[in-house]
Amino acid sequence: MAVYTEIPDDEFARFMAGYDLGAVTSMKGIAEGVENSNFLLVTERGQFILTLYEKRVDPADLPFFLGLMEHLAEHGITCPLPVRNREGTALGHLAGRPAAVVTFLPGIGVRRPRAEHCIALGGALASLHLAGRGFAITRRNALSVGGWRPLFDNCLGRADAVQPGLGAEIARELDILEAAWPADLPTGVIHADLFPDNVFFLNDRLSGLIDFYFACNDMLAYDVAICINAWCFEPDASLNVTKARGLLAAYQAVRPLSAGEAAALPLLCRGSALRFLLTRLYDWLNTPDNALVVKKDPLEYLKKLRFHRSVAEASAYGLAT
Amino acid sequence: MAVYTEIPDDEFARFMAGYDLGAVTSMKGIAEGVENSNFLLVTERGQFILTLYEKRVDPADLPFFLGLMEHLAEHGITCPLPVRNREGTALGHLAGRPAAVVTFLPGIGVRRPRAEHCIALGGALASLHLAGRGFAITRRNALSVGGWRPLFDNCLGRADAVQPGLGAEIARELDILEAAWPADLPTGVIHADLFPDNVFFLNDRLSGLIDFYFACNDMLAYDVAICINAWCFEPDASLNVTKARGLLAAYQAVRPLSAGEAAALPLLCRGSALRFLLTRLYDWLNTPDNALVVKKDPLEYLKKLRFHRSVAEASAYGLAT
Repeated sequence: MAVYTEIPDDEFARFMAGYDLGAVTSMKGIAEGVENSNFLLVTERGQFILTLYEKRVDPADLPFFLGLMEHLAEHGITCPLPVRNREGTALGHLAGRPAAVVTFLPGIGVRRPRAEHCIALGGALASLHLAGRGFAITRRNALSVGGWRPLFDNCLGRADAVQPGLGAEIARELDILEAAWPADLPTGVIHADLFPDNVFFLNDRLSGLIDFYFACNDMLAYDVAICINAWCFEPDASLNVTKARGLLAAYQAVRPLSAGEAAALPLLCRGSALRFLLTRLYDWLNTPDNALVVKKDPLEYLKKLRFHRSVAEASAYGLAT
Repeated sequence: MAVYTEIPDDEFARFMAGYDLGAVTSMKGIAEGVENSNFLLVTERGQFILTLYEKRVDPADLPFFLGLMEHLAEHGITCPLPVRNREGTALGHLAGRPAAVVTFLPGIGVRRPRAEHCIALGGALASLHLAGRGFAITRRNALSVGGWRPLFDNCLGRADAVQPGLGAEIARELDILEAAWPADLPTGVIHADLFPDNVFFLNDRLSGLIDFYFACNDMLAYDVAICINAWCFEPDASLNVTKARGLLAAYQAVRPLSAGEAAALPLLCRGSALRFLLTRLYDWLNTPDNALVVKKDPLEYLKKLRFHRSVAEASAYGLAT
């Protein structure tokens, strides 16, 4: 939720002149996405989103992100489509930053998903996993198991300031998850950040997926675990098994989980919880106080992590076997 | 620049059902306005702005603000027009706050106004002052001379943390301005916050004015002074007299300043500079660190204040006599 960059008037005019979108009649910074600056553009051709990629995004990853959105759109996924400029490229440069214009997607993210939203999400997630096959570029998941310890090292000694004992608890988790993390499950392109604000609905029908800036290649079932954490818990951090059951059944109707994936699900949920606990903890401790972002509570994910630690098998999530 | 309030899904649906705007296809928080939460709505009827009035806005003032926009629109000023709901009222209630939907105004605020923008502004400001005549409701300017000392008292002892000597300098200014502040100049409805981000342009033509939430009754020439401060200084805090001359000439072409207004202009500019110095200082010292706002530099207005202190008469602003 941020607009970090102010765009000089003349640079903006020059940038937009490079596109075949007609005159710009409105530009408003929007409170969406924590990583980049986003603006809603209205032009003679319609509505578009202008994104300036801020320092957390590696410019070398942009061909992956933009190419992926094109690939997914070509394969039936409703997602923002990068608009190519007059030179035929989707990636431009504005206000000292890489920049791109993508199509505007109608729809509204739900704040409090109900079971029917989780069902719709499950199907869309599986379709996304199938549609990602054949995409030629790959991107390593920097926030998978190998990335957690470096992140934790950056918080070391300060975790207990957030909650006493947190540092030791994370250290134990890391040891366990690093040792047990699966290496032989099906992989592919995953969204890796499919929280409710990245899934649009219109009249309770899923209308599109946005924000592919964490997408990468990793275990497909890890993406399922991320969604269980993001969609299926109540505000008191208890699992709503109706929601999880619906999500998983709808996923399996499109792409059945293998026996190995099903068996690994509790561990993947636990790892996914640790991943968001760690990034939130890092942001909590390192975000400058004047930053235009809402710091998210790391302890929400500590509670989820503890829940998954207590789970013996995937039937606890309502997975039909 | 803020979205403070999250709106529960069901409350939002109920609220919008009260309007004749068709189905909502998009809602995005926008980074605009420092006082309220603003959302850009797209519905079957077009684009609209939904505003939730946050705690800094006194609900008792809302009939003034909403009524003023209707009055101004009826008198030829291009500004957002409040949309009345099915019950015929413009003021609603959403997420525990007063709320209103207004029409969407095309146009883009300029970051760095050029002289031609200042000329367009001058004419629009005078037209606004004429159009405000006959508006039945009145609202005292809480941020005129009588409001400055209470604001300063809330910063007392801490001003020097921003710059050594600042407290004493403000105290001296306050004494002088309170004693010399004019009481017999023409009054009317003023915008009171007509900064460049509140003035939209399309193809360098002024296309509308927004954000009337500081509007009030006060000296019309004080509004001119606010605009000189907001539009006619360069980043090094030096006055660009070409811009000020253009603004004033265009203003006078629509509404000539009286001799008394012209003579008071340096003092009004000085007072306006102190007003924004004080509110920025207050915000600087009192804004919670996690707030979603960019704190504006109070010292920018200290420099402007010092400039105006050195001005003997309005010809220094390029005012034709």
